[in-house]
Amino acid sequence: MKTSATFYHAGCPVCVAAEQQLADAIDPARFDIEVVHLGEAKARIPEAEAVGVKSVPALVIAGQPFHINFGAAIADLK
Amino acid sequence: MKTSATFYHAGCPVCVAAEQQLADAIDPARFDIEVVHLGEAKARIPEAEAVGVKSVPALVIAGQPFHINFGAAIADLK
Repeated sequence: MKTSATFYHAGCPVCVAAEQQLADAIDPARFDIEVVHLGEAKARIPEAEAVGVKSVPALVIAGQPFHINFGAAIADLK
Repeated sequence: MKTSATFYHAGCPVCVAAEQQLADAIDPARFDIEVVHLGEAKARIPEAEAVGVKSVPALVIAGQPFHINFGAAIADLK
């Protein structure tokens, strides 16, 4: 079974760079990668916060959040 | 030809978590992944700084740095 990997972003330049390079580098053979735009899918902000996402872009692998550089705070997306 | 991906760390708990989850998630079919412990290999600090690494853990993909969470500042490793 593949491990889930969710990339949360908000369409910002820092987010786009991280998505194109880092999210794209994840091994698709081992991970189910989902990309979520929190600016457009605000209903998913609580889910991101629940696993500890404080800012975007962030990659959550198997429930563990990794904040990548800094694009925007979650609070600013609400 | 594979793209280079260098994971810089300093053995800190934040670094270890990032290495085990995120660096390990990179697709080995497309990337040559090198793990560098800057606390032990101080001679490589200038190379990391040259591509813009400010803190560890950081992953540099094709010359672009991604800072992952925050373990330690590069300045504190010198």
